[in-house]
Amino acid sequence: MKAGDGPNSYANNSTFQKIAVNSSQEVVREEIAEKLDIQTFLLSSCNTFRIADLGCSTGPNTFFAVDNILETVQLKYQSQGLSSHQIPKFQVFFNDQTTNDFNMLFKSLPQNRQYYAAGVPGSFYGRIFPNASIHLFHCSFSNHWLSRVPKEIGNKESPAWNKGKIYYSSSTTEVTRAYETQHALDMERFLNARAQEIVYGGLMVLIIPCRPNGTPHSHTLANITYETLGSCLIDMARKGVVDEGKLDSFNIPVYIMSPQELEVAVERTGYFSIERMEVLPNMFPNSSLSNALLSTSHVRAVHEEHIKQHFGEEIIDELFNLYHKKVEERPSKFESGKTIVSLAVLKRNTN
Amino acid sequence: MKAGDGPNSYANNSTFQKIAVNSSQEVVREEIAEKLDIQTFLLSSCNTFRIADLGCSTGPNTFFAVDNILETVQLKYQSQGLSSHQIPKFQVFFNDQTTNDFNMLFKSLPQNRQYYAAGVPGSFYGRIFPNASIHLFHCSFSNHWLSRVPKEIGNKESPAWNKGKIYYSSSTTEVTRAYETQHALDMERFLNARAQEIVYGGLMVLIIPCRPNGTPHSHTLANITYETLGSCLIDMARKGVVDEGKLDSFNIPVYIMSPQELEVAVERTGYFSIERMEVLPNMFPNSSLSNALLSTSHVRAVHEEHIKQHFGEEIIDELFNLYHKKVEERPSKFESGKTIVSLAVLKRNTN
Repeated sequence: MKAGDGPNSYANNSTFQKIAVNSSQEVVREEIAEKLDIQTFLLSSCNTFRIADLGCSTGPNTFFAVDNILETVQLKYQSQGLSSHQIPKFQVFFNDQTTNDFNMLFKSLPQNRQYYAAGVPGSFYGRIFPNASIHLFHCSFSNHWLSRVPKEIGNKESPAWNKGKIYYSSSTTEVTRAYETQHALDMERFLNARAQEIVYGGLMVLIIPCRPNGTPHSHTLANITYETLGSCLIDMARKGVVDEGKLDSFNIPVYIMSPQELEVAVERTGYFSIERMEVLPNMFPNSSLSNALLSTSHVRAVHEEHIKQHFGEEIIDELFNLYHKKVEERPSKFESGKTIVSLAVLKRNTN
Repeated sequence: MKAGDGPNSYANNSTFQKIAVNSSQEVVREEIAEKLDIQTFLLSSCNTFRIADLGCSTGPNTFFAVDNILETVQLKYQSQGLSSHQIPKFQVFFNDQTTNDFNMLFKSLPQNRQYYAAGVPGSFYGRIFPNASIHLFHCSFSNHWLSRVPKEIGNKESPAWNKGKIYYSSSTTEVTRAYETQHALDMERFLNARAQEIVYGGLMVLIIPCRPNGTPHSHTLANITYETLGSCLIDMARKGVVDEGKLDSFNIPVYIMSPQELEVAVERTGYFSIERMEVLPNMFPNSSLSNALLSTSHVRAVHEEHIKQHFGEEIIDELFNLYHKKVEERPSKFESGKTIVSLAVLKRNTN
């Protein structure tokens, strides 16, 4: 994500993620009110309820999500007729990759927050918290990031070598399969790690951009976006602005799963029950997605940094100008793309 | 502290702090081995031992200190004949002001660390952790920073207005008293906050640059350093390089306490017993302190940022060149300065 708070920063270009957080809030409140079984929690001597937001980026979306959760948990405790000193205090862990701009995150923490804040650097595909130390996980718009580009994709000797492309959705079966396998492995590692870190009975809220069940990868809006970005880089390689070898070794570590794939992953690991799973309503009206400027600024905020690291800073403006032009020229291509955002509420089994 | 890892950064100019950490390690090991009463700890369901380093800055000193503590606690558990799964896991909280360079701290976390790491932004003069959630606090070279410059120091109407100076040690009685009062208040807030956050029986290690009991403020090495820095700013104000009004409104929020003042503060708040209190041996041989270059780079790394914020970047090089010259010209002044580093190990009362 683009750090800081400049015009191209993630902080100022995360409208989609914000809409998702907003439209998930009511469901999250309902699920906490109904499913959070606070009697089973041993809050230990310090009477602290611990929340972690995974892939929090730099705010402000993470702060909205956390406040919504915290207020609902507080209400739940109050509804049990507990006195104020029996209602727990809150500690919130903001997690993201080590390269995240934690300095900015910390500086923008709400002044009037009702929790003790901490930042936790590191990939959520590994262990980042002690055993049974978190009561509620929240993870929004993060699980579509793979832990890495599948190894074989960059290997010239492999049938899954992704020559001349930067993504899987309109590539060969071998490439697509390599992405699918990496995704299945990552989800397994994600669920296994969280299963150790969460208390028995704890809840996990996942908000994930998905493709509808049965929709081909190539018809998915997010994937059309990445393929368009790839076509810009291919054009620039033809013009000699981008090195062809660099293009071959660049691939975007994103996989757009279907709700069904998510279900399969949860069931396979076996540590969580699916308490609720639904498509968030009417979030990305095609009219707004066909807004080329919005689409460009979104893609740029999310991908500028790793593209810059690979290709160098000098290509960035040209790349996103070209991208902008392509979106403007063919709005129908984007309007036909399918996309949904799935919300899943999982509960840690007590056995 | 100067962020990043450039030539003037704190990370590359914290030799004094490193010597202090090194020479404290043996004492810390002894005290943990002897005084850490692990039987009294309820490690809760997650079996996690929590350590916090307060005022950690950007490393690497904080990592050395934490490793030393962690290994000693591990040994202590092993010596009780516990099996490996009964030995707790560790979670380490790195705390400093919100303006600290946490991005750099996180990027330099040791790869092979044996703990879950988290960063906690915020002043340790307030609450930063949930009740009874930390087993061992470490705080090195941080307690001499006041939470703020005493209010009256900057008030033209007050008898404690510190006109034409930036520090208290060669100023009026009123100014000195204002600093002393602020320090007493800050230590009380520090100890009260930690008393709530630490478990009963938990240990707190404080390493503090001090003046020997009975030594006047003006004879203390650190204070001579600040007075010299002040005299440079006064010279620059006379030359018109520094604005006189800006000089009057600038004061350094540092107070060099005596071990006796520390004892009084601990006894007054009443939550901790002093398990050990001693002067660390032979840490700053005068010969090395008379090394003007080392002194300059140290003072610059620690104070460049807040001087820059107040006076602007353009004066920085001239200021520290002048400072360097003054130290070189009068080494005897610095050699005569008294300084000690006190180490205190406190234990939280169980009642």
